[in-house]
Parts: sequence; C-alpha cells; structure tokens
Amino acid sequence: MSTQREPMARFHSIIPAGGIGSRLWPLSRASAPKFLHDLTGSGQTLLQDTWDRLTPLAGRDRILVVTGKVHKSAVLEQIEDLSTDNLVLELSPKDSTAAIALAAAILVKREPDVIVGSFAADHVIAEDEQFRETVREAVEVAATGKIVTIGIEPTEPSVGFGYIKAGENLGIAGAPNARDVARFVEKPNIAKARKYVESGDYLWNAGMFIAPAALLLEQLAKTEPELHAALLKIAEAWDTEDRKTVMAKVWPKLKKVAIDYSVAEPAAAAGLVAVVPANFSWHDVGDFAAIAELQSQGRRGNLAVLGNAKVLADSSSGILVSDTDRLVALIGVEDIIVVDTPDALLVTTKEHAQRVKNLVDALRTTGHEDVL
Amino acid sequence: MSTQREPMARFHSIIPAGGIGSRLWPLSRASAPKFLHDLTGSGQTLLQDTWDRLTPLAGRDRILVVTGKVHKSAVLEQIEDLSTDNLVLELSPKDSTAAIALAAAILVKREPDVIVGSFAADHVIAEDEQFRETVREAVEVAATGKIVTIGIEPTEPSVGFGYIKAGENLGIAGAPNARDVARFVEKPNIAKARKYVESGDYLWNAGMFIAPAALLLEQLAKTEPELHAALLKIAEAWDTEDRKTVMAKVWPKLKKVAIDYSVAEPAAAAGLVAVVPANFSWHDVGDFAAIAELQSQGRRGNLAVLGNAKVLADSSSGILVSDTDRLVALIGVEDIIVVDTPDALLVTTKEHAQRVKNLVDALRTTGHEDVL
Repeated sequence: MSTQREPMARFHSIIPAGGIGSRLWPLSRASAPKFLHDLTGSGQTLLQDTWDRLTPLAGRDRILVVTGKVHKSAVLEQIEDLSTDNLVLELSPKDSTAAIALAAAILVKREPDVIVGSFAADHVIAEDEQFRETVREAVEVAATGKIVTIGIEPTEPSVGFGYIKAGENLGIAGAPNARDVARFVEKPNIAKARKYVESGDYLWNAGMFIAPAALLLEQLAKTEPELHAALLKIAEAWDTEDRKTVMAKVWPKLKKVAIDYSVAEPAAAAGLVAVVPANFSWHDVGDFAAIAELQSQGRRGNLAVLGNAKVLADSSSGILVSDTDRLVALIGVEDIIVVDTPDALLVTTKEHAQRVKNLVDALRTTGHEDVL
Repeated sequence: MSTQREPMARFHSIIPAGGIGSRLWPLSRASAPKFLHDLTGSGQTLLQDTWDRLTPLAGRDRILVVTGKVHKSAVLEQIEDLSTDNLVLELSPKDSTAAIALAAAILVKREPDVIVGSFAADHVIAEDEQFRETVREAVEVAATGKIVTIGIEPTEPSVGFGYIKAGENLGIAGAPNARDVARFVEKPNIAKARKYVESGDYLWNAGMFIAPAALLLEQLAKTEPELHAALLKIAEAWDTEDRKTVMAKVWPKLKKVAIDYSVAEPAAAAGLVAVVPANFSWHDVGDFAAIAELQSQGRRGNLAVLGNAKVLADSSSGILVSDTDRLVALIGVEDIIVVDTPDALLVTTKEHAQRVKNLVDALRTTGHEDVL
C-alpha cells in the first residue's frame, strides 16, 4: 500500500449476534435469543444497546451484523439503520470462527487494509465512552500488526469468565496501556480465581477482538486451512450473484470451532496478541442471577422486575422476568427467580441460576423442543 | 304427630356451597370458588365428592344444595342428579345462618319432622363410610331433641381449627359415643392447642350440624328473631309463584351472621348441643399447604402436582397447582407453592401459605378485582 490510512479510518465493527443463551430460558429461545431482549430495563434490547455503543466509533455504515437467517426480520426491525449490505445471514449456527472470519473475509475484499473489531451482541457495558476509548487504543495497537483483545480488570474472583494473563507493556505510542498477552486461561475454580485477582496480572476475557482482518485470516489459515479456504470461497462470491449458490454449497460443511481456539490462543502462543486493560463495567449476562444484579430500573424493594407484569410482592426478593401481562404475586420467597412467559414458567433461586442450562438440555432430550 | 318416623327416615342433607376460599387464590375465585375444584387429585371436585359421600345416607333426592346464583350452571353441570327443587340459589352471600336456616325452613315446610344435616361443600374426608356411620349416630341423637355436631379427634395441636369441649356421655341408645357439648372454643394459640389435645376432651369443630329443622329454627328465633322471621317469610313463598318477588324483597336485607354465633354457641350454653366424636380423617383445606398434604396422586418425588401441567422439577419440593397447559420448570426450590392460572401466578412457600388471604385483601383494595 502506498499511502497508509490512519488506524481509526480503517476500522469496521462486526457484531456476531448468535447464541441462544440457554441459561436464560424460558425468556431466551432459539426463536428469540438473548440479544433480542431488553435484559437491563434500558428500554432497548442488548443488540440495540450494542449498536448504539458502536456507531460513534466509525459511523453507522461501518458496522456489520452476523446473525442466523431466522433472525433477519427481528434484527432489521430492531436496527433501522442497518443496510442489508452490512447484514451477513448464517444458514445455521457454526460457532464464532465461521461468523467472525467470514465477516472479516467479506470486509477485507471490500477494503484490503480494514481493521475489524468483533463485539458480541449480548453483552452489557455501562460506560459506553470508556469502552470506545479502549477500542480506539486497541485499534492503534492492531495497526502495529497485532490481534488485540480487551481485558476487563476483575472486580471479584469470578469463576464464570475466562481470564487473560497480561505480560509486558508494549510501549506503543497512542496506546499507553497495551500489554502483551502471555496466555488465555479457561474459567478457573474459586481458589485459582482468587490468586488471579490478587496477582493483578489477570484480566477477564470479554471475548472482544480487534485486528487487521488480513492478519486474523492469516492466523486462521495456519490453524484451520480448510475452514479458511471455505470462508474465502464464500467471501469471494458474497458481493456477486453467486452468493446464494456458494453459501448453500459451502456453509453446511463448515467446521464449528470457537475463535478462541482457532485464532486467539495459537496467536497468543506465537506472541501476536496484545491486550488493552479496561475498567468499564462489563457483563456477559450469563444467567438470571446476573440480570438481577444488572437491573437498574423497576426495583420494588429487593425485587427486580423486568417486563410489564403487574406485581404484588410481600417479603420477597430476587428477580421477576415477565413476558406476559399476568398478575404475579410473590409471598415470602427470597432470592427467587421467576420467569413468566406465555408457554413456559421457570421458578428457581439465584443460587441455582446456572442449572437452568441443564434443564434446557433435559427438555431437549425429553422431546420438549417446542418450548426451546 | 301420631306416628313418629324412624330417625334416618326423617333425614335430609343440606350442602351449603359458599365461601370463596381466599387462601386458595388464584385457583379459587369469586367466579370459581374452592368447592368447584378438584383439590385432592380424585378426579372429582370437592362438591362432587361431598355429594357422593352423602347420597348413600338418604338417597339423591334428599340432598339440598344452597349456593350463589352465579354458580347455578356450574353446580348443575357438576351434579347431574340434582333437581332444581333441591337447589336454593342465594342472590348474594349472607353467611352461614341465612344459607342453612333458609334450607331448614324450606324443608320443614315440606316435611315438618325433618332432621337436617349440614355439611360444607368444600371439606375433604377420606373415609366416607366412617363419616356416614357417624352421621347416622348423630341423627339418632338429634331425634332426642338435640342439635348435634361432629367433633374430629385431633391428630395434632392445630391452630387452624376451632375446638369443641366435650362433656359427659349422653347414654343414648344407638349413639354410644355421643357426649354433651360443654362449649365451643375459637381457634387457639399453639400452647392452648397443645393443652386441648393432651386433655382428650377437646375435638376439632368440623362445622357440621345435625338437628331437627324445627329445633334449629326455634333456637334461631330466640337469638335472631328478625332474621328468623325474614327467612320464614321466604320459606313460606319458596314453593309458590311468589318465590322470586319475596326473595328480591327480603334477601338483600338479611343479616350476615355465622351459624356458630346465631345457633350453635347459644344452644350449647343452654345445654342443647351434643357431639359425636369421630376419627375419620377430615380437612377443611384452608390453604395450599393443606392441599400439598392431602394430595394423593400426581406426586413426583416430594412435589405434589395438581392439574395437567407438564412439569420438570429438579431438587424441588412442595406443590404445583396448574390451571393452564404451560410447561412449568422448578429448580432447587423447596417447600414451594406455585399456582399457575391463565391470568394470575402465585409463588409462595408452605410456611407462608396462610398469608395468601392478606394478599387477596391487598388486591381488593388496590383495584385488582378482575383477578379475584
């Protein structure tokens, strides 16, 4: 390239909008996954919040959404400014590598020096401007030829997130906080989590990646050459009349693999990954207990209420999530989780919120797909 | 009377089918009170169970049902054998004296020497034949000129029932267990209840009365002369074409008073009340905790299930009452009470089951009559 553009001028966001969120059943369904719901009481869905968080970075024309084709109309309805050029529809779920790397491959064809940033559609971030400052710093680092992740400074020894072990400061101009990534670590047990937090070198892995699209694809080519070749084939046809034919032929056979395994971890081992530590509040809203914590509006005493339910609560605490207009009465139930939807009702406690996933698995194996 | 009939030949049952059962909200409603529900999992409603328990005593033509006019079609649908001659419809709820004494007054006009037995439509009795044996004994006692009640031998120091203090055995032929009633006592505290049970002289007041109708009305005339006169006026017109006119004029002004206060207690003080002790299992199904205990069918582990809900329960105990076809998932909730109806959902615990009544009161004062 003769004239190199400024890093932020090369930036383009990707929003992979997938994942059912089994731990949020029966609110979150295959037909209405987590990102299509307002889980914070903000009045907007998580997808809309994510969109609004990203538009100031590079404008509303530089955000590409990857989602299942079954969610096409819901996504276009929720995001009025999304053009179909920036909507990638998956024929079936193929995990994060296929979603993000296809988006990167489509964008790199349109714009060879593009720097992509991938941000999940269903995470909650309170301080949007701090988030954007961190992304801008990450884009500077990415422009030096790195795959950059954002690491959240832990506020507690959570066992619900993976961690990033940060190494030396990289000393990059315009990115004073950027550090090398020593390695990624899986969700720890509580003892390890405590050690991580005490050490000060471990950050929560928020699953955000910022990198030159070409570098990301180059790394993928090394670890998953077949998947890489298949995705390039689709990208080649994407902006042509062959898109549908090629997708139908290639997509169903794609390997399912998380981008953490296909790109992030191998690249970290090769010394190619950097991290920008951040201390904005972030949550992946993994279960209803998390929603109860996040709820900013609708609190009645110690009871968080999401939805428009008429509620009568007496000596009760926890969270009520309502997707109906039924009256809900709670008496003397503490740390309760009640999720009221038209065809399914869940009653559990904050303590058991994680077990909802097991229940969904049980529903699947007992032939209750109709409510999943 | 020249030739006195045998006591059982004079017997006629009355079923006062009233009382919403506020502690069973939202299952039990003004429009669908307790007695119209199957609360035992027997496959029949409490009213149907009561009817079937009574028919062997004197036949299906000798049972009179008193209920609100709004329940007319539901009652006639549930009890196919009930003739409209034996159906007394109240224009509005006027408590137990009006219901039972009007029935007695109507019957005494048809049959001057009738002995009536009043049995609530919403109580649960397991041993029907034992019940009938007790009633037959009570009828023998009633024929000697007594108002007879049935006292249940307590199995625990319940604070949920009133008690009857029994006196001397009356030594009546054909009624070897019948005793004098010293007095009726209100629901006690737990300390008193323990003393009552230890003494052996106290029985649970099951609210059943067996007496010559003429004696019952004579007692009412002494304590509530106006109410007595008004009821006689209605009874006089009952089997004539004036019924509707007289009801419309007289019924709305009737005094509301429980028969315990208007007849039973004053008559006991006058030495006119006897009790037949009984040890069949009896329950007035006062709240959902009681239903959980009574549930004989539909148990899944420690969870009692009433209704046709699809249920997935994991480490949960208590009771689920379902009036919908929604799937209900319970995870890690113990001693829980979940009542799922089309327009209202209740979640509480066995411990707090009695507080449902307060909630219903709160609903009434906050303008939620539509779900009551």
